[in-house]
Amino acid sequence: MPVQPNDPRPGRVVVIAGAALLALGDGLAPGMRLAPAGAAPLEGQRSSAEILAASAASDWRAPDPESLLYIDLDRGRVIVELSAHFAPAHKAQIRTLARQGYYEGLSFYRVIDGFVAQAGDLIENRDRGAAAETLPPEFDRPLLDAMGFSPLRDADGYAARIGFVDSMPVGSDADGKRAWLLHCAGAFAFGRETAADTASTEFYVTLQPQRYLDRNLTVAGRVIDGMEHLQALRRVEPASGPEGDLGETIVSMRIASDLPQAERKPLEVLASGTQTFADYIEARRNRAEAFFVHRPDYIDICQIPVPVRPARATPETQR
Amino acid sequence: MPVQPNDPRPGRVVVIAGAALLALGDGLAPGMRLAPAGAAPLEGQRSSAEILAASAASDWRAPDPESLLYIDLDRGRVIVELSAHFAPAHKAQIRTLARQGYYEGLSFYRVIDGFVAQAGDLIENRDRGAAAETLPPEFDRPLLDAMGFSPLRDADGYAARIGFVDSMPVGSDADGKRAWLLHCAGAFAFGRETAADTASTEFYVTLQPQRYLDRNLTVAGRVIDGMEHLQALRRVEPASGPEGDLGETIVSMRIASDLPQAERKPLEVLASGTQTFADYIEARRNRAEAFFVHRPDYIDICQIPVPVRPARATPETQR
Repeated sequence: MPVQPNDPRPGRVVVIAGAALLALGDGLAPGMRLAPAGAAPLEGQRSSAEILAASAASDWRAPDPESLLYIDLDRGRVIVELSAHFAPAHKAQIRTLARQGYYEGLSFYRVIDGFVAQAGDLIENRDRGAAAETLPPEFDRPLLDAMGFSPLRDADGYAARIGFVDSMPVGSDADGKRAWLLHCAGAFAFGRETAADTASTEFYVTLQPQRYLDRNLTVAGRVIDGMEHLQALRRVEPASGPEGDLGETIVSMRIASDLPQAERKPLEVLASGTQTFADYIEARRNRAEAFFVHRPDYIDICQIPVPVRPARATPETQR
Repeated sequence: MPVQPNDPRPGRVVVIAGAALLALGDGLAPGMRLAPAGAAPLEGQRSSAEILAASAASDWRAPDPESLLYIDLDRGRVIVELSAHFAPAHKAQIRTLARQGYYEGLSFYRVIDGFVAQAGDLIENRDRGAAAETLPPEFDRPLLDAMGFSPLRDADGYAARIGFVDSMPVGSDADGKRAWLLHCAGAFAFGRETAADTASTEFYVTLQPQRYLDRNLTVAGRVIDGMEHLQALRRVEPASGPEGDLGETIVSMRIASDLPQAERKPLEVLASGTQTFADYIEARRNRAEAFFVHRPDYIDICQIPVPVRPARATPETQR
C-alpha cells in the first residue's frame, strides 16, 4: 500500500525536511512539510514555511512588467527581472533588443554544466538596429539610499558587505560607496571581450554561483521563474560556424508589458525590505525543525532561495 | 562570415574567459581560451588552464572502479565516486543495493530546481534484500592523517576549516577532530526521516550548494560525470501513490567494477594532494587573465570545479 512521502516509519520513503522553497506555490512548497508531531522544534522559532504562510500581502511585490523579460524556449518560459537600480544602460539595451525581436531564432550557443548558459548571435549576421554597438561597463554602481539596501549580518568571502536590493543579492565595498549585483545562480548578465566596454548583445545566466565574476561583468537582473529550463538546456560549446551545433533556439524574447494580459504569468517576489524577509532568512540560518541536529548560525547569500509565488488576482498585481 | 567565438572585435560574439573547467577534456575546455595577444596577464601567474595543460600524469588519479556508481538514465549516465574515507556503512549499503539491482526501474521522484534530485522507492514495494533496514548516522567522522586532508586558507561561514580529501570538498571543526563531506553541488547523500538513524535506501544529489545540510545528513560521495543529466531531470514533487507522476526512471545502477571493460567510462580526477591542485586553486582565487579587472583573493570551496578528464589509456587506469 502506498504511503505518504514523509511517513515517519524508519526505513521507508524519506523526504528531506524544510528546504524546498524555490518552488512556486503558496509559500509552502508541497514537498516541504513540518517535522512529524512529537518532534521538538527550536524553542520559540518558526520555520521558514510557517513564516511565509503567515506573511501579509504587503510583504510581496509584483515586479514591474516593463522590467520583466520573457525568454520563451521550446521547453518553456524563463522570466528575468531586470534591476530597477543597477545597470541602467544594459537594461535599456536588452529592452531595445527584445522589442526589435533581435533574439528570435538566436540560441543558447554556449551551455557549460555548472557554469553558464550564454545566448545571442554566434554567427553575427543579425542587425542590432537601434541598439548600441557597445556599452559602458556597469560592474558596480554608487550605493544610494534610494536602493533600500538590506544588509545581512553574515560574513562573505567576496564582498565586504552583502545584502539585498529589490530582493536581489547585492555586494558592497567596506565604506558602502559602491554596490553590485552578485553572480549567484540565476544571475542575468552580459558577456564581453577583454576590454571592459565591449558588452553589446550577448548575455548569460549563471547555472551555479560564480562569485569570481562579480565586478568583472555587468549583472542586470536575475531569473525569477523557469530556471529549470535553462538547467535542462543541451550542453554545447560555441560552434566555429553556422554548420555547427548552435544549441537550443530562443523562440522569442519579449518585455512582459508588450504582451496581452492573458499571455503573462503574474508573479510576486518576497520583498527584501520587510520583517518577513528578515525572519525568513533567520529561519534558514538556524532551522527550527527537529530534523536538524546541526545549526550553523550562518547563511551564504547565494544559498537563500528568494521566494516567488503566483500573484494574487487583484487589479494591482494583474496590471 | 562566421567568426571564432572569442573574436576580439568589439560588439561581436563574446565568450566569458577562463571559467569552463567543469567540462571533460584534456584539461583545457574548448570554450576556455586565454586572453587575446596584447592583454597583460597577472604578473608571474599562470592561468588555471595553463596549469592543467602542464600537469603531470601523476597529478591525476583514477578512481577505484569498486567505488564508482553508474546511474544510467534514458538521458545518459551519471557517475558517482563514493568516498574511501567517509560514510563506510552508507557506502556498503549502496553497493549492496546496486549489486542486487534494487534501483532498476525506480525513479527520481523528487526533483526540486536549485535544491536536490532525490531517488529511490517512493511506492515502497521493493525488497531491500541483504541491505540494512536502517543505517547509523555518519554525518561526520574522525579526521585521520590517513585521509590526507589538504586545507584551504579561505574562510568559510559553515565550517571552521575546509579543504579536500580525495578531491572531495570537506569541512572540519576548529580542533581538527571531526570532518565531513560538504553539500556542494553534486554531493551524493542519503535521505532520512526525523530520527538521525533512519537512512536506508533513498538518496539525493544536490543540484546547487546546500551547505545547511552539512552534518545533518550523510554525504557518501560526489558526482564526477554526467551532472547535466540530473540538472535536466523533469522537476517533480513526490506523488501520493503509484498513480501519480513518479518522475524519471533509473534504467540501472551498478558498480563500475561489475561492468565489462568496454562498458566503462574511464576517468581521472585531479588529485587534491598535489602541487598542481594547489596551483589550480590559487589561479582561480586571483585570475591571471587580463579579462579580470577585479581579483577577490578568495575562493568559495563549492565554487571550485574539480577537474575530471578521460583517463589516459594505460593498463593502470584502464583496469
